[in-house]
Amino acid sequence: MFKEYCESKIPLIEAELSTLLKTDHNIAPKLYDAMQYSLLAGGKRLRPILLMAAAEAVSGEDGKPYIKPACALEMIHTYSLIHDDLPAMDDDDYRRGNLTNHKVFGEGIAILAGDALLTNAFEVVLRQENVPAERLLKVVKEFSEAAGYNGMVGGQVIDLLSENKKVDIETLRLMHQAKTGALFRAAIRSGAILAGANKEEMIALTEYAENFGLAFQITDDILDVIGEAAKIGKPVGSDIKNNKSTYVTLYSLEKAKEMANDAVASALDALKIFGREAEFLRHVVRYLITRDH
Amino acid sequence: MFKEYCESKIPLIEAELSTLLKTDHNIAPKLYDAMQYSLLAGGKRLRPILLMAAAEAVSGEDGKPYIKPACALEMIHTYSLIHDDLPAMDDDDYRRGNLTNHKVFGEGIAILAGDALLTNAFEVVLRQENVPAERLLKVVKEFSEAAGYNGMVGGQVIDLLSENKKVDIETLRLMHQAKTGALFRAAIRSGAILAGANKEEMIALTEYAENFGLAFQITDDILDVIGEAAKIGKPVGSDIKNNKSTYVTLYSLEKAKEMANDAVASALDALKIFGREAEFLRHVVRYLITRDH
Repeated sequence: MFKEYCESKIPLIEAELSTLLKTDHNIAPKLYDAMQYSLLAGGKRLRPILLMAAAEAVSGEDGKPYIKPACALEMIHTYSLIHDDLPAMDDDDYRRGNLTNHKVFGEGIAILAGDALLTNAFEVVLRQENVPAERLLKVVKEFSEAAGYNGMVGGQVIDLLSENKKVDIETLRLMHQAKTGALFRAAIRSGAILAGANKEEMIALTEYAENFGLAFQITDDILDVIGEAAKIGKPVGSDIKNNKSTYVTLYSLEKAKEMANDAVASALDALKIFGREAEFLRHVVRYLITRDH
Repeated sequence: MFKEYCESKIPLIEAELSTLLKTDHNIAPKLYDAMQYSLLAGGKRLRPILLMAAAEAVSGEDGKPYIKPACALEMIHTYSLIHDDLPAMDDDDYRRGNLTNHKVFGEGIAILAGDALLTNAFEVVLRQENVPAERLLKVVKEFSEAAGYNGMVGGQVIDLLSENKKVDIETLRLMHQAKTGALFRAAIRSGAILAGANKEEMIALTEYAENFGLAFQITDDILDVIGEAAKIGKPVGSDIKNNKSTYVTLYSLEKAKEMANDAVASALDALKIFGREAEFLRHVVRYLITRDH
Protein backbone atom coordinates (compact mmCIF):
# COMPACT_ATOMS: atom_id res chain seq x y z
CA MET A 1 0.00 0.00 0.00
CA PHE A 2 2.86 2.39 0.75
CA LYS A 3 4.15 2.17 -2.79
CA GLU A 4 0.70 2.59 -4.35
CA TYR A 5 -0.05 5.57 -2.15
CA CYS A 6 3.20 7.30 -3.07
CA GLU A 7 2.72 6.45 -6.71
CA SER A 8 -0.65 8.14 -6.58
CA LYS A 9 0.63 11.26 -4.79
CA ILE A 10 4.11 11.90 -6.23
CA PRO A 11 2.96 12.76 -9.79
CA LEU A 12 0.50 15.29 -8.34
CA ILE A 13 3.24 16.85 -6.23
CA GLU A 14 5.71 16.96 -9.12
CA ALA A 15 3.11 18.54 -11.39
CA GLU A 16 2.31 21.17 -8.79
CA LEU A 17 5.99 21.91 -8.13
CA SER A 18 6.68 22.34 -11.82
CA THR A 19 4.09 25.09 -12.30
CA LEU A 20 3.91 26.63 -8.82
CA LEU A 21 6.39 29.42 -9.47
CA LYS A 22 5.65 30.08 -13.11
CA THR A 23 4.59 33.65 -13.78
CA ASP A 24 4.08 35.63 -16.96
CA HIS A 25 7.26 37.47 -16.27
CA ASN A 26 10.06 36.30 -14.00
CA ILE A 27 12.38 39.20 -13.39
CA ALA A 28 15.46 36.93 -13.24
CA PRO A 29 15.07 33.84 -15.45
CA LYS A 30 18.38 32.37 -14.32
CA LEU A 31 17.19 32.43 -10.71
CA TYR A 32 13.98 30.71 -11.70
CA ASP A 33 15.95 28.03 -13.57
CA ALA A 34 18.16 27.44 -10.54
CA MET A 35 15.13 27.10 -8.24
CA GLN A 36 13.40 24.67 -10.59
CA TYR A 37 16.60 22.67 -11.11
CA SER A 38 16.70 21.61 -7.48
CA LEU A 39 12.95 21.58 -6.87
CA LEU A 40 12.44 19.07 -9.67
CA ALA A 41 15.51 16.92 -9.00
CA GLY A 42 13.43 14.06 -7.64
CA GLY A 43 13.44 12.76 -4.12
CA LYS A 44 10.96 10.88 -2.00
CA ARG A 45 8.69 13.91 -1.49
CA LEU A 46 8.15 12.58 2.02
CA ARG A 47 7.27 15.92 3.60
CA PRO A 48 4.39 16.85 1.28
CA ILE A 49 3.16 13.27 1.43
CA LEU A 50 3.17 13.34 5.23
CA LEU A 51 1.27 16.63 5.32
CA MET A 52 -1.46 15.26 3.09
CA ALA A 53 -1.55 11.92 4.91
CA ALA A 54 -1.94 13.63 8.30
CA ALA A 55 -4.82 15.69 6.91
CA GLU A 56 -6.40 12.44 5.69
CA ALA A 57 -6.01 10.82 9.10
CA VAL A 58 -7.96 13.71 10.62
CA SER A 59 -10.62 14.30 7.97
CA GLY A 60 -11.00 10.80 6.55
CA GLU A 61 -10.85 12.43 3.12
CA ASP A 62 -8.21 12.75 0.40
CA GLY A 63 -5.45 15.19 1.42
CA LYS A 64 -5.07 16.49 -2.12
CA PRO A 65 -6.79 19.84 -1.46
CA TYR A 66 -3.82 20.72 0.74
CA ILE A 67 -1.26 20.28 -1.99
CA LYS A 68 -0.07 23.91 -1.93
CA PRO A 69 1.12 24.01 1.70
CA ALA A 70 2.46 20.50 1.08
CA CYS A 71 4.58 21.79 -1.81
CA ALA A 72 5.65 24.79 0.26
CA LEU A 73 7.29 22.29 2.64
CA GLU A 74 9.16 20.75 -0.26
CA MET A 75 10.39 24.24 -1.20
CA ILE A 76 11.77 24.68 2.33
CA HIS A 77 13.34 21.23 2.24
CA THR A 78 14.92 21.98 -1.16
CA TYR A 79 16.32 25.33 0.00
CA SER A 80 17.98 23.55 2.92
CA LEU A 81 19.59 20.98 0.63
CA ILE A 82 20.96 23.70 -1.68
CA HIS A 83 22.49 25.62 1.22
CA ASP A 84 23.79 22.47 2.97
CA ASP A 85 25.66 21.48 -0.20
CA LEU A 86 27.50 24.83 -0.53
CA PRO A 87 31.30 24.95 -0.33
CA ALA A 88 31.08 26.82 2.99
CA MET A 89 28.96 23.96 4.42
CA ASP A 90 29.24 20.31 3.36
CA ASP A 91 30.88 21.17 0.02
CA ASP A 92 29.12 18.48 -2.00
CA ASP A 93 29.39 18.26 -5.78
CA TYR A 94 26.60 15.75 -6.27
CA ARG A 95 23.16 15.15 -4.86
CA ARG A 96 20.96 12.26 -5.98
CA GLY A 97 23.41 11.63 -8.80
CA ASN A 98 23.12 15.14 -10.23
CA LEU A 99 25.47 18.09 -9.89
CA THR A 100 24.58 20.25 -6.92
CA ASN A 101 23.00 23.65 -7.53
CA HIS A 102 26.16 25.70 -7.03
CA LYS A 103 28.10 23.39 -9.35
CA VAL A 104 25.66 24.22 -12.15
CA PHE A 105 24.69 27.83 -11.42
CA GLY A 106 27.58 29.14 -9.32
CA GLU A 107 27.70 29.84 -5.63
CA GLY A 108 26.02 33.25 -5.65
CA ILE A 109 22.99 32.10 -7.62
CA ALA A 110 22.74 28.91 -5.53
CA ILE A 111 22.60 30.89 -2.29
CA LEU A 112 19.94 33.13 -3.80
CA ALA A 113 17.91 30.22 -5.24
CA GLY A 114 17.80 28.79 -1.72
CA ASP A 115 16.81 32.15 -0.28
CA ALA A 116 13.98 32.52 -2.78
CA LEU A 117 12.63 28.98 -2.27
CA LEU A 118 12.53 29.61 1.47
CA THR A 119 10.94 33.05 1.11
CA ASN A 120 8.28 32.15 -1.42
CA ALA A 121 7.30 29.03 0.51
CA PHE A 122 5.39 31.31 2.88
CA GLU A 123 3.47 32.97 0.09
CA VAL A 124 2.67 29.53 -1.37
CA VAL A 125 1.11 28.42 1.94
CA LEU A 126 -1.26 31.36 1.69
CA ARG A 127 -2.56 30.19 -1.68
CA GLN A 128 -4.51 27.56 0.25
CA GLU A 129 -8.22 28.12 -0.21
CA ASN A 130 -11.24 27.14 1.91
CA VAL A 131 -9.37 27.08 5.20
CA PRO A 132 -9.98 29.63 8.00
CA ALA A 133 -7.31 32.34 8.27
CA GLU A 134 -6.48 31.30 11.86
CA ARG A 135 -5.44 27.85 10.68
CA LEU A 136 -3.23 29.23 7.95
CA LEU A 137 -1.50 31.49 10.46
CA LYS A 138 -0.81 28.44 12.61
CA VAL A 139 0.72 26.68 9.61
CA VAL A 140 2.96 29.68 8.87
CA LYS A 141 4.07 29.54 12.51
CA GLU A 142 4.78 25.81 12.32
CA PHE A 143 6.89 26.28 9.18
CA SER A 144 8.78 29.31 10.44
CA GLU A 145 9.62 27.81 13.82
CA ALA A 146 10.57 24.42 12.38
CA ALA A 147 12.83 25.98 9.76
CA GLY A 148 14.30 28.76 11.92
CA TYR A 149 17.14 29.27 14.36
CA ASN A 150 15.87 26.79 16.91
CA GLY A 151 14.92 24.34 14.15
CA MET A 152 16.56 23.40 10.87
CA VAL A 153 19.07 26.25 10.76
CA GLY A 154 20.11 25.66 14.37
CA GLY A 155 20.52 21.95 13.63
CA GLN A 156 22.70 22.70 10.63
CA VAL A 157 24.89 24.96 12.78
CA ILE A 158 25.35 22.16 15.34
CA ASP A 159 26.23 19.84 12.46
CA LEU A 160 28.70 22.35 11.00
CA LEU A 161 30.40 22.91 14.34
CA SER A 162 30.57 19.15 15.03
CA GLU A 163 32.56 18.37 11.91
CA ASN A 164 35.40 15.96 12.64
CA LYS A 165 34.47 15.99 16.30
CA LYS A 166 33.07 13.14 18.32
CA VAL A 167 29.78 14.40 19.73
CA ASP A 168 27.76 12.88 22.55
CA ILE A 169 24.43 11.24 22.08
CA GLU A 170 22.49 14.20 23.48
CA THR A 171 24.05 16.55 20.93
CA LEU A 172 23.43 14.07 18.14
CA ARG A 173 19.78 13.73 19.10
CA LEU A 174 19.26 17.49 19.39
CA MET A 175 21.00 18.07 16.07
CA HIS A 176 18.80 15.62 14.19
CA GLN A 177 15.64 16.70 15.98
CA ALA A 178 16.31 20.26 14.81
CA LYS A 179 17.85 19.63 11.42
CA THR A 180 15.47 16.96 10.13
CA GLY A 181 12.89 16.10 12.77
CA ALA A 182 11.44 19.59 13.09
CA LEU A 183 10.28 19.77 9.46
CA PHE A 184 8.71 16.30 9.59
CA ARG A 185 6.93 17.43 12.74
CA ALA A 186 5.75 20.62 11.02
CA ALA A 187 4.57 18.61 8.01
CA ILE A 188 2.42 16.29 10.08
CA ARG A 189 1.14 18.93 12.48
CA SER A 190 0.32 21.30 9.61
CA GLY A 191 -1.71 18.65 7.80
CA ALA A 192 -3.59 18.07 11.04
CA ILE A 193 -4.14 21.80 11.61
CA LEU A 194 -5.39 22.36 8.06
CA ALA A 195 -7.91 19.54 8.41
CA GLY A 196 -9.13 20.94 11.73
CA ALA A 197 -7.69 18.41 14.19
CA ASN A 198 -8.88 18.55 17.78
CA LYS A 199 -6.51 18.67 20.74
CA GLU A 200 -6.36 14.90 21.24
CA GLU A 201 -5.57 14.35 17.56
CA MET A 202 -2.87 17.03 17.64
CA ILE A 203 -1.18 15.38 20.62
CA ALA A 204 -1.33 11.93 19.02
CA LEU A 205 0.01 13.13 15.67
CA THR A 206 2.77 15.16 17.30
CA GLU A 207 3.85 12.04 19.20
CA TYR A 208 3.73 10.10 15.95
CA ALA A 209 5.75 12.80 14.17
CA GLU A 210 8.52 12.92 16.75
CA ASN A 211 8.96 9.15 16.66
CA PHE A 212 8.80 9.22 12.87
CA GLY A 213 11.67 11.71 12.80
CA LEU A 214 13.75 9.63 15.19
CA ALA A 215 13.15 6.41 13.24
CA PHE A 216 13.98 8.23 10.00
CA GLN A 217 17.31 9.42 11.30
CA ILE A 218 18.40 6.15 12.87
CA THR A 219 17.54 4.20 9.74
CA ASP A 220 19.45 6.80 7.71
CA ASP A 221 22.52 6.06 9.81
CA ILE A 222 21.96 2.31 9.44
CA LEU A 223 21.67 2.63 5.65
CA ASP A 224 24.99 4.39 5.57
CA VAL A 225 26.52 1.16 6.87
CA ILE A 226 24.46 -1.56 5.19
CA GLY A 227 22.85 0.16 2.19
CA GLU A 228 23.79 -0.10 -1.47
CA ALA A 229 25.70 2.93 -2.68
CA ALA A 230 23.71 3.23 -5.90
CA LYS A 231 20.41 3.32 -4.05
CA ILE A 232 21.28 5.75 -1.28
CA GLY A 233 23.19 8.06 -3.65
CA LYS A 234 26.41 8.33 -1.64
CA PRO A 235 29.26 5.92 -0.91
CA VAL A 236 28.39 3.39 1.77
CA GLY A 237 30.35 3.95 4.96
CA SER A 238 30.94 7.65 4.20
CA ASP A 239 29.82 8.61 7.72
CA ILE A 240 32.50 6.38 9.25
CA LYS A 241 35.09 7.64 6.79
CA ASN A 242 34.18 11.24 7.58
CA ASN A 243 34.40 10.56 11.31
CA LYS A 244 30.76 11.45 11.71
CA SER A 245 29.04 10.53 14.94
CA THR A 246 25.91 8.54 14.13
CA TYR A 247 23.51 6.28 16.00
CA VAL A 248 25.53 3.36 14.64
CA THR A 249 28.97 4.69 15.62
CA LEU A 250 27.82 5.89 19.05
CA TYR A 251 25.90 2.68 19.85
CA SER A 252 26.20 -0.32 17.56
CA LEU A 253 24.42 -1.57 14.48
CA GLU A 254 22.33 -3.96 16.58
CA LYS A 255 21.41 -1.36 19.16
CA ALA A 256 20.57 1.18 16.43
CA LYS A 257 18.22 -1.33 14.78
CA GLU A 258 16.54 -1.94 18.11
CA MET A 259 16.12 1.81 18.69
CA ALA A 260 14.62 2.27 15.23
CA ASN A 261 12.15 -0.55 15.91
CA ASP A 262 11.21 1.01 19.24
CA ALA A 263 10.61 4.41 17.63
CA VAL A 264 8.41 2.82 14.97
CA ALA A 265 6.44 0.97 17.65
CA SER A 266 5.92 4.22 19.58
CA ALA A 267 4.80 6.01 16.42
CA LEU A 268 2.28 3.25 15.69
CA ASP A 269 1.08 3.29 19.27
CA ALA A 270 0.44 7.05 19.06
CA LEU A 271 -1.98 6.38 16.19
CA LYS A 272 -4.22 4.07 18.22
CA ILE A 273 -6.98 6.68 18.47
CA PHE A 274 -7.30 6.61 14.68
CA GLY A 275 -8.93 3.96 12.51
CA ARG A 276 -8.36 3.07 8.89
CA GLU A 277 -8.02 6.75 7.91
CA ALA A 278 -4.49 6.69 9.43
CA GLU A 279 -3.49 3.53 7.59
CA PHE A 280 -1.02 5.28 5.35
CA LEU A 281 0.71 6.96 8.29
CA ARG A 282 1.17 3.44 9.71
CA HIS A 283 2.56 2.17 6.44
CA VAL A 284 5.00 5.01 5.97
CA VAL A 285 6.60 4.66 9.38
CA ARG A 286 6.89 0.88 8.94
CA TYR A 287 8.48 1.52 5.56
CA LEU A 288 11.35 3.35 7.27
CA ILE A 289 12.77 0.16 8.74
CA THR A 290 12.51 -1.76 5.49
CA ARG A 291 13.67 0.93 3.07
CA ASP A 292 16.84 0.60 1.08
CA HIS A 293 17.41 4.29 0.23
CA MET B 1 10.47 66.85 13.11
CA PHE B 2 12.07 64.00 11.15
CA LYS B 3 14.96 63.79 13.56
CA GLU B 4 12.73 63.95 16.65
CA TYR B 5 10.43 61.29 15.28
CA CYS B 6 13.30 58.93 14.54
CA GLU B 7 14.87 59.67 17.88
CA SER B 8 11.63 58.64 19.54
CA LYS B 9 11.25 55.44 17.51
CA ILE B 10 14.77 54.09 17.06
CA PRO B 11 15.42 53.27 20.74
CA LEU B 12 12.12 51.34 20.85
CA ILE B 13 13.09 49.39 17.74
CA GLU B 14 16.60 48.67 19.01
CA ALA B 15 15.24 47.48 22.35
CA GLU B 16 12.75 45.21 20.63
CA LEU B 17 15.39 43.81 18.26
CA SER B 18 17.74 43.07 21.13
CA THR B 19 15.28 40.84 22.98
CA LEU B 20 13.08 39.55 20.16
CA LEU B 21 14.97 36.30 19.61
CA LYS B 22 16.04 35.61 23.17
CA THR B 23 14.81 32.28 24.45
CA ASP B 24 15.57 30.29 27.58
CA HIS B 25 17.57 27.91 25.48
CA ASN B 26 19.02 28.63 22.06
CA ILE B 27 20.14 25.37 20.53
CA ALA B 28 23.08 27.00 18.76
CA PRO B 29 24.45 29.99 20.70
CA LYS B 30 26.96 30.88 17.99
CA LEU B 31 24.15 31.22 15.47
CA TYR B 32 22.25 33.47 17.84
CA ASP B 33 25.37 35.63 18.32
CA ALA B 34 25.83 35.94 14.56
CA MET B 35 22.19 36.97 14.08
CA GLN B 36 22.37 39.57 16.85
CA TYR B 37 25.71 40.89 15.59
CA SER B 38 24.18 42.10 12.35
CA LEU B 39 20.72 42.87 13.69
CA LEU B 40 22.15 45.28 16.25
CA ALA B 41 24.81 46.85 14.03
CA GLY B 42 22.94 50.12 13.74
CA GLY B 43 21.43 51.59 10.63
CA LYS B 44 18.63 54.01 9.94
CA ARG B 45 15.89 51.50 10.77
CA LEU B 46 13.93 53.08 7.93
CA ARG B 47 11.76 50.05 7.17
CA PRO B 48 10.31 49.57 10.67
CA ILE B 49 9.88 53.34 10.98
CA LEU B 50 7.98 53.45 7.69
CA LEU B 51 5.70 50.59 8.73
CA MET B 52 4.77 52.35 11.94
CA ALA B 53 4.42 55.73 10.26
CA ALA B 54 2.08 54.30 7.61
CA ALA B 55 -0.05 52.76 10.35
CA GLU B 56 -0.15 56.18 12.03
CA ALA B 57 -1.23 57.86 8.80
CA VAL B 58 -4.18 55.49 8.61
CA SER B 59 -5.21 55.28 12.25
CA GLY B 60 -4.16 58.71 13.49
CA GLU B 61 -2.65 56.90 16.48
CA ASP B 62 0.88 55.95 17.53
CA GLY B 63 2.24 53.09 15.39
CA LYS B 64 4.09 51.54 18.32
CA PRO B 65 1.65 48.63 18.78
CA TYR B 66 2.91 47.30 15.44
CA ILE B 67 6.53 47.11 16.50
CA LYS B 68 6.79 43.34 16.04
CA PRO B 69 5.97 43.20 12.31
CA ALA B 70 8.09 46.35 12.00
CA CYS B 71 11.08 44.53 13.50
CA ALA B 72 10.38 41.48 11.33
CA LEU B 73 11.06 43.74 8.33
CA GLU B 74 14.37 44.76 9.83
CA MET B 75 15.21 41.05 10.21
CA ILE B 76 14.54 40.52 6.49
CA HIS B 77 16.56 43.61 5.61
CA THR B 78 19.45 42.41 7.79
CA TYR B 79 19.42 38.91 6.26
CA SER B 80 19.70 40.48 2.80
CA LEU B 81 22.70 42.58 3.86
CA ILE B 82 24.50 39.53 5.32
CA HIS B 83 23.98 37.50 2.14
CA ASP B 84 24.80 40.43 -0.18
CA ASP B 85 28.15 40.88 1.57
CA LEU B 86 29.23 37.23 1.10
CA PRO B 87 32.32 36.40 -0.96
CA ALA B 88 30.11 34.78 -3.62
CA MET B 89 28.16 38.05 -3.93
CA ASP B 90 29.62 41.54 -3.35
CA ASP B 91 32.51 40.21 -1.25
CA ASP B 92 32.54 43.08 1.24
CA ASP B 93 34.70 43.06 4.36
CA TYR B 94 33.07 46.02 6.05
CA ARG B 95 29.57 47.33 6.52
CA ARG B 96 28.81 50.52 8.43
CA GLY B 97 32.40 50.55 9.63
CA ASN B 98 32.23 47.07 11.17
CA LEU B 99 33.48 43.76 9.86
CA THR B 100 30.83 41.96 7.86
CA ASN B 101 29.15 38.90 9.34
CA HIS B 102 31.18 36.31 7.44
CA LYS B 103 34.41 38.09 8.37
CA VAL B 104 33.60 37.59 12.05
CA PHE B 105 31.72 34.27 12.08
CA GLY B 106 32.87 32.55 8.90
CA GLU B 107 31.00 32.03 5.67
CA GLY B 108 28.94 29.00 6.71
CA ILE B 109 27.58 30.61 9.87
CA ALA B 110 26.94 33.89 8.03
CA ILE B 111 24.81 32.14 5.40
CA LEU B 112 22.89 30.37 8.15
CA ALA B 113 22.46 33.53 10.25
CA GLY B 114 20.87 35.15 7.20
CA ASP B 115 18.68 32.11 6.61
CA ALA B 116 17.47 32.16 10.19
CA LEU B 117 16.74 35.91 10.26
CA LEU B 118 14.67 35.51 7.11
CA THR B 119 12.85 32.43 8.38
CA ASN B 120 12.03 33.68 11.86
CA ALA B 121 10.84 37.03 10.52
CA PHE B 122 7.61 35.28 9.54
CA GLU B 123 7.05 33.88 13.00
CA VAL B 124 7.77 37.31 14.49
CA VAL B 125 5.01 38.88 12.34
CA LEU B 126 2.57 36.44 13.91
CA ARG B 127 3.38 37.65 17.40
CA GLN B 128 1.27 40.71 16.58
CA GLU B 129 -1.75 40.87 18.87
CA ASN B 130 -5.17 42.51 18.47
CA VAL B 131 -5.22 42.38 14.70
CA PRO B 132 -7.62 40.14 12.71
CA ALA B 133 -6.01 36.97 11.28
CA GLU B 134 -6.91 38.01 7.72
CA ARG B 135 -4.78 41.15 8.02
CA LEU B 136 -1.81 39.22 9.36
CA LEU B 137 -2.04 36.82 6.44
CA LYS B 138 -1.94 39.79 4.07
CA VAL B 139 1.18 41.07 5.81
CA VAL B 140 2.88 37.66 5.49
CA LYS B 141 2.02 37.76 1.78
CA GLU B 142 3.43 41.28 1.40
CA PHE B 143 6.69 40.26 3.09
CA SER B 144 7.07 36.98 1.20
CA GLU B 145 6.38 38.47 -2.22
CA ALA B 146 8.55 41.54 -1.61
CA ALA B 147 11.48 39.44 -0.40
CA GLY B 148 11.10 36.55 -2.86
CA TYR B 149 12.18 35.63 -6.36
CA ASN B 150 10.31 38.44 -8.07
CA GLY B 151 11.36 40.88 -5.34
CA MET B 152 14.57 41.32 -3.35
CA VAL B 153 16.19 38.03 -4.36
CA GLY B 154 15.39 38.60 -8.04
CA GLY B 155 16.80 42.12 -7.80
CA GLN B 156 20.01 40.82 -6.25
CA VAL B 157 20.35 38.29 -9.08
CA ILE B 158 20.00 41.08 -11.66
CA ASP B 159 22.62 43.04 -9.74
CA LEU B 160 24.96 40.04 -9.59
CA LEU B 161 24.62 39.33 -13.30
CA SER B 162 25.14 43.02 -14.17
CA GLU B 163 28.53 43.25 -12.49
CA ASN B 164 31.04 45.09 -14.68
CA LYS B 165 28.41 45.46 -17.36
CA LYS B 166 26.75 48.62 -18.55
CA VAL B 167 23.03 48.10 -18.07
CA ASP B 168 20.21 50.11 -19.59
CA ILE B 169 17.92 52.32 -17.59
CA GLU B 170 15.03 49.86 -17.68
CA THR B 171 17.17 47.12 -16.15
CA LEU B 172 18.52 49.54 -13.55
CA ARG B 173 15.03 50.61 -12.57
CA LEU B 174 13.73 47.03 -12.37
CA MET B 175 16.74 45.96 -10.35
CA HIS B 176 16.27 48.67 -7.74
CA GLN B 177 12.52 48.32 -7.66
CA ALA B 178 12.98 44.64 -6.80
CA LYS B 179 16.10 44.80 -4.66
CA THR B 180 15.24 47.82 -2.50
CA GLY B 181 11.90 49.28 -3.54
CA ALA B 182 9.85 46.15 -2.91
CA LEU B 183 10.65 46.01 0.81
CA PHE B 184 9.91 49.72 1.30
CA ARG B 185 6.62 49.11 -0.46
CA ALA B 186 5.89 46.11 1.76
CA ALA B 187 6.77 48.17 4.86
CA ILE B 188 4.37 50.96 4.01
CA ARG B 189 1.58 48.74 2.72
CA SER B 190 1.87 46.43 5.73
CA GLY B 191 1.58 49.31 8.17
CA ALA B 192 -1.53 50.41 6.28
CA ILE B 193 -2.99 46.89 6.26
CA LEU B 194 -2.38 46.39 9.99
CA ALA B 195 -4.15 49.66 10.80
CA GLY B 196 -7.11 48.69 8.61
CA ALA B 197 -6.64 51.03 5.63
CA ASN B 198 -9.48 51.29 3.13
CA LYS B 199 -8.96 50.88 -0.61
CA GLU B 200 -8.37 54.56 -1.31
CA GLU B 201 -5.77 54.77 1.45
CA MET B 202 -4.02 51.62 0.17
CA ILE B 203 -3.77 53.07 -3.33
CA ALA B 204 -2.44 56.40 -2.05
CA LEU B 205 0.14 54.80 0.23
CA THR B 206 1.28 52.37 -2.46
CA GLU B 207 1.83 55.31 -4.79
CA TYR B 208 3.73 57.07 -2.03
CA ALA B 209 5.80 53.95 -1.36
CA GLU B 210 6.84 53.44 -4.95
CA ASN B 211 7.97 57.04 -5.29
CA PHE B 212 9.71 56.81 -1.94
CA GLY B 213 11.70 53.82 -3.18
CA LEU B 214 12.66 55.58 -6.39
CA ALA B 215 13.75 58.74 -4.57
CA PHE B 216 15.72 56.63 -2.10
CA GLN B 217 17.66 54.90 -4.83
CA ILE B 218 18.41 57.98 -6.88
CA THR B 219 19.62 59.88 -3.85
CA ASP B 220 21.75 56.86 -2.92
CA ASP B 221 23.45 57.10 -6.30
CA ILE B 222 23.88 60.86 -5.88
CA LEU B 223 25.45 60.42 -2.44
CA ASP B 224 27.98 58.06 -3.95
CA VAL B 225 29.24 60.99 -5.99
CA ILE B 226 28.85 63.96 -3.66
CA GLY B 227 28.64 62.44 -0.17
CA GLU B 228 31.31 62.30 2.52
CA ALA B 229 32.95 58.91 2.75
CA ALA B 230 32.81 58.83 6.55
CA LYS B 231 29.08 59.45 6.59
CA ILE B 232 27.98 57.05 3.88
CA GLY B 233 30.30 54.30 5.12
CA LYS B 234 32.00 53.53 1.80
CA PRO B 235 34.51 55.39 -0.36
CA VAL B 236 32.92 58.19 -2.39
CA GLY B 237 32.87 57.43 -6.10
CA SER B 238 33.04 53.65 -5.56
CA ASP B 239 30.17 53.09 -8.00
CA ILE B 240 32.10 54.85 -10.77
CA LYS B 241 35.29 53.01 -9.85
CA ASN B 242 33.43 49.68 -9.90
CA ASN B 243 31.88 50.49 -13.29
CA LYS B 244 28.43 50.35 -11.77
CA SER B 245 25.55 51.75 -13.76
CA THR B 246 23.68 54.27 -11.62
CA TYR B 247 21.16 57.04 -12.14
CA VAL B 248 24.10 59.44 -12.12
CA THR B 249 26.26 57.54 -14.62
CA LEU B 250 23.34 56.76 -16.95
CA TYR B 251 21.95 60.31 -16.84
CA SER B 252 23.93 63.09 -15.16
CA LEU B 253 24.19 64.49 -11.67
CA GLU B 254 21.83 67.34 -12.57
CA LYS B 255 19.28 65.08 -14.21
CA ALA B 256 19.43 62.61 -11.30
CA LYS B 257 18.75 65.43 -8.82
CA GLU B 258 15.79 66.53 -10.90
CA MET B 259 14.42 62.98 -11.00
CA ALA B 260 14.79 62.64 -7.24
CA ASN B 261 12.91 65.89 -6.72
CA ASP B 262 10.15 64.72 -9.06
CA ALA B 263 9.78 61.43 -7.21
CA VAL B 264 9.55 63.28 -3.88
CA ALA B 265 6.91 65.60 -5.31
CA SER B 266 4.88 62.62 -6.55
CA ALA B 267 5.18 60.93 -3.17
CA LEU B 268 3.93 64.06 -1.42
CA ASP B 269 1.13 64.43 -3.92
CA ALA B 270 -0.03 60.87 -3.21
CA LEU B 271 -0.51 61.83 0.44
CA LYS B 272 -2.97 64.64 -0.31
CA ILE B 273 -5.95 62.61 0.97
CA PHE B 274 -4.31 62.55 4.41
CA GLY B 275 -4.11 65.35 6.97
CA ARG B 276 -1.64 65.90 9.77
CA GLU B 277 -1.55 62.18 10.63
CA ALA B 278 0.68 61.66 7.55
CA GLU B 279 3.04 64.48 8.47
CA PHE B 280 5.91 62.16 9.27
CA LEU B 281 5.59 60.34 5.95
CA ARG B 282 5.94 63.75 4.32
CA HIS B 283 9.00 64.58 6.39
CA VAL B 284 10.74 61.30 5.73
CA VAL B 285 10.48 61.51 1.95
CA ARG B 286 11.66 65.13 1.99
CA TYR B 287 14.58 64.05 4.14
CA LEU B 288 15.79 61.77 1.34
CA ILE B 289 16.87 64.71 -0.82
CA THR B 290 18.64 66.48 2.03
CA ARG B 291 20.28 63.48 3.68
CA ASP B 292 24.04 63.11 3.80
CA HIS B 293 24.23 59.34 4.44
